[in-house]
Formats: sequence, structure tokens, C-alpha cells
Amino acid sequence: MPGRGPTYNALRHMPPFDLSSWLNLRTAEVDAALDRSLPKESKKPSTIHKAMRYSIFAGGKRMRPALVLAAAEACGRPNPDSYSLACAVECIHTYSLIHDDLPGMDNDDMRRGKPTNHKVFGEGMAILAGDALLTQAFEIAALCESNSRYSHRDLVLELARASGSLQLIAGQVADLEGEGKPTSRAQLRYIHERKTSALLCCSVRLGGMSVGCKPQQLEALTDFGYHVGLAFQVIDDILDVTQSSEVLGKTAGKDVKAGKATYPAIVGLDESRRIAAALTRKAFAALKPFRGKATALEAIAEYLLKRDH
Amino acid sequence: MPGRGPTYNALRHMPPFDLSSWLNLRTAEVDAALDRSLPKESKKPSTIHKAMRYSIFAGGKRMRPALVLAAAEACGRPNPDSYSLACAVECIHTYSLIHDDLPGMDNDDMRRGKPTNHKVFGEGMAILAGDALLTQAFEIAALCESNSRYSHRDLVLELARASGSLQLIAGQVADLEGEGKPTSRAQLRYIHERKTSALLCCSVRLGGMSVGCKPQQLEALTDFGYHVGLAFQVIDDILDVTQSSEVLGKTAGKDVKAGKATYPAIVGLDESRRIAAALTRKAFAALKPFRGKATALEAIAEYLLKRDH
Repeated sequence: MPGRGPTYNALRHMPPFDLSSWLNLRTAEVDAALDRSLPKESKKPSTIHKAMRYSIFAGGKRMRPALVLAAAEACGRPNPDSYSLACAVECIHTYSLIHDDLPGMDNDDMRRGKPTNHKVFGEGMAILAGDALLTQAFEIAALCESNSRYSHRDLVLELARASGSLQLIAGQVADLEGEGKPTSRAQLRYIHERKTSALLCCSVRLGGMSVGCKPQQLEALTDFGYHVGLAFQVIDDILDVTQSSEVLGKTAGKDVKAGKATYPAIVGLDESRRIAAALTRKAFAALKPFRGKATALEAIAEYLLKRDH
Repeated sequence: MPGRGPTYNALRHMPPFDLSSWLNLRTAEVDAALDRSLPKESKKPSTIHKAMRYSIFAGGKRMRPALVLAAAEACGRPNPDSYSLACAVECIHTYSLIHDDLPGMDNDDMRRGKPTNHKVFGEGMAILAGDALLTQAFEIAALCESNSRYSHRDLVLELARASGSLQLIAGQVADLEGEGKPTSRAQLRYIHERKTSALLCCSVRLGGMSVGCKPQQLEALTDFGYHVGLAFQVIDDILDVTQSSEVLGKTAGKDVKAGKATYPAIVGLDESRRIAAALTRKAFAALKPFRGKATALEAIAEYLLKRDH
């Protein structure tokens, strides 16, 4: 029936999903939402709002917000709460980077090619900027609505648990305590589960929850987020030893020098590659129940897990 | 009618409210609730839970939890949510002290006669312990229920806003930036409103909200918390210059030495005393609408505002 949109046949031969355009569009939307959610720089006390915005708009890839929105798309249609939760997760991620870079922690001067927060605003202000972004994340999440399947409580609790002392912060602690000490493969997986998988898992779960996803969809998203997180970390470890600083855009071999445990150091490079491949397979397999509706999620996973830098 | 309880006359001559017994009882209940709410020390990673508990159980006076419960009593009967919110507020207060004591901030070695968190656990762990307590506060608050007048959202939002970059953190920022600089009376009030009043106000408001207080009760509690907070700070400033270290139990004259703005330095001692008295009167006046039902609140205010150390 001409004039009534694409035929069934046309749909079967849809052009491949254009992740780059999708990401550009979503990132611009998330940036606008973050700009609306954070107090303006002019708001008193101005320094803290400058410091918060400095790190939030420091050129992060917005992978976690993208995962929130892609998961919402896989289960329905992203709504204002999907965007709020995307912002909340990005605030959590950014606070953890600011605190992680502090002299009392990793003592990093540069991040994404720019001076770290404490290098620009001083240590005290960077501590407070991190605290403020963490608090802001909960203010943003608190403004969400309950929906037919998930209550307001479920949403805030999901965010708090993923960020707390048994998950995200546990990863930082284990990382801090593990430096220079022999680490087993099980311990390394424990660190990766918390440092990376916890917040990636939370991102896709919150995306699904924001549109009232079904329980089996939430389970599939959890499975996906968990394995993407682990695979991402193993690949990060591999790239740290195989790529030059030039290709990586950050100091290569940094983990090894810092005495941090890595997969290649513990199980060797070949076994690390096998592990990464197995985890990647599991991540993609988790998306099967969505039967083609998780296009954006699939493309993001491919982008994250098939990178060379 | 003998044997049927106290007569009207007996009620009119009730023994004076025994704050000390009330506080002992409530503090023990809050301590038990905190113990249940925080992960056990044995929970992995054990160090962070030890660090969180070290500062939570370091002998704080539990004034904010007491205010939550006393406000709940003034408006109804404290329920499990009143206790949860009391714990949440105490977690926020404790995190802010841990971060405030860090070398990048006030650089304090001792608090309440004990080594500060970073002195015991190291700077990195103290940063993370503060982060974890802040996050825990929202997890605890997220577990509360909505009631007939206030939704789950109202409760979490109240906590987030009072702790955020426009309130509690704004006070820390202004304090940090004001050190050694000339400060006006208006600026000093701005700092006190945020550093102290914000969380005291939030405490009594959450107490009232937990038992579904009426709008005019919430307004009275807000007014009370605001003025108690300001009066408390002015009195703190006065004691810092008039009392010996021995009486205070902490270093006297510390604020002056640190170049921090104080009321006596800006308006003189006599005017500071007049201001403190006026604020105290306003705090007590705010309780009038409760017509005798705010006994515990009144007693706590008296204890806080008529102290000599």
C-alpha cells in the first residue's frame, strides 16, 4: 500500500543502526537535562556550582546515561524520569571520579586531558563538589514519579544501593586496599563487579524501571549490565598493557605501575582475552529476550567491548 | 474518683519534664536503630564499615535525632519512620564532620576527645567513609513509607535539599572561603543558616512529617528549627571567646585563631548576647501553637541554648 509508510519488506532491510547519531542526540539531551538539574554557576555559593559543573561538563562520554536511555528504549518509550535517572547516575559517576582523583586517593592531576577538580578548585572544594554531586543525584532521583510497576521507593533505593558501601564504594575501598598487594582472580572479579558493574547494572535497571519494564526484562537488563561491566574492565586491563599511551589517550601501563591488580598480570594476556570474549558473549546473550528491540543497547555494548582504546 | 488515675489537679502539677531520662532512652533507641541500619563491621569490605561505625559511634550527643523524635512527639506518636529519619539525619551530620576534619578542609586531628576518622583510617578511607554515610542516609530514608500527608518523595527531597549545595554544603563552602577574610554580619548569618540551621530545621520537619503533621505544625517546626540553629551558633561563638578550654572540653578561642568570622568579633560581646537572647525567644515562641505538647522540644532547646559549654 504505497503512501502508508514502509512495507514489511522495507522494515526487514532497515539501514544498520547509526550509534554515532543516536549518541549525539541522546548526549545533547542529557547535557541539557543536566544543565537544568544542577544549580546555575551564578547561584550562591558560586564556587561550588562552578566546581560541580566543571567536572560534569568535562567531556565525559555519558556512557551511563546512554545505557539508561537505551534500556528504557528496549522496554518502552523513554520519559522525563528516564532522563532524570540518567542525570542522577551521571552525577554519581562524576562524584566518584572527583573523589577518586584526590591526593588522599589516586592523586591524579589530569582526567580526560583536563586538570582534575582539586587541581582547579583546591582539595577542600573538590571534596565538597563530590559531596554535592552525590547529594544532587538523590535530589534528582527524588523528583521522579512512581509508575505502575515500580514505586518511588524502588527507584531511590536502587540508586542508593548501587552507590553504597557494599557496591560502588566497596569497589573503591578494595581498589585502595589492594594496591601493591597480591590479588587473586576472585578478588579482582570482586573489585570489577563493584567498581564498574554495579553502576552499569544500576543504569540499565533504572532505565527499564523508568518505563515500567516487566520483571523478566529487568532480569535480562541486570544480566546484561553485569556482564558488560565485567567485560569492559577486563578489556581495559588488556588495553593498558597492549596499547601505547598515544592510542589510549591516557598513560598506558598506569595500572601496572601503580601496583594495581589486572587480569593480564594474574592470568596472562591470552587467558584475559578468552575471559573478555566469554563475558562479551554473555552480555549479548542477555539481550535475546528483547528480540531485536534492544538495538541501542546492543550497539553501545559493541562500541564499549570492541574498542581498541 | 480514686483509683482511676491522676485527677485534673494532679496533672496540673506534673513533675517537671526529665530531659536527661528522655535523652538516655531516646539515644539508646537511636543507637540501636543505627546499629541495625549500618552494615556490620564483619561485612566485606570490613574497613569501610569499621570507619563508618567509628565515627557514628564516637560519642555524638545525638541532638539531631533527638530533635526528630521530639518533633514527632509534638505532633503525634513517633513511629518506625521517625526513627529511620533520625538515623538518616545523624548519618548526614556525621559524614559532614568526617569530611570537615580532613586535611583538605579544617585539618583536625581530634574530635570529641578521639582521633578523627582520617587519623585512624587514613585520608582515602575517611573520604570514602563520609561518602558511604551520605549514601547510607538516602538508603535509610528511601526505606520509609509515605503517609496520609507526606509522600515518600517529600521525605527524600527534604533530606536531599537540606544537605545539598544550597544548604548544608553551602555553609561549608562559605566557611571555607571566608577564613581570614573580612565577613559582614549578613554573611555570617548566611553561613550559620546553612551550616547549622539547615539540618536542625530538616530534623524537626522530618520528625513532624514522619507522623503526618498538619501544615501549620510544619510551619511552626520550621520556624523553631531555624531559630534554634541560629541561636546555637551565636552562643557557640560567645562561648569560644568567654570560656576556658577546660570548661568547653575543646580548644577555646579556636575560631578566632583560625581567622573564622564570629559574632563577638563583628558586633561585640554585648550585642552578640542580645542577638542570642532574641533568637532564643523566637525559638520558644515558635512552639506556642503546640500548647504544651512540645515538652521535649522545649527542653532540648533549653538545654542547647542555656548551656555554658
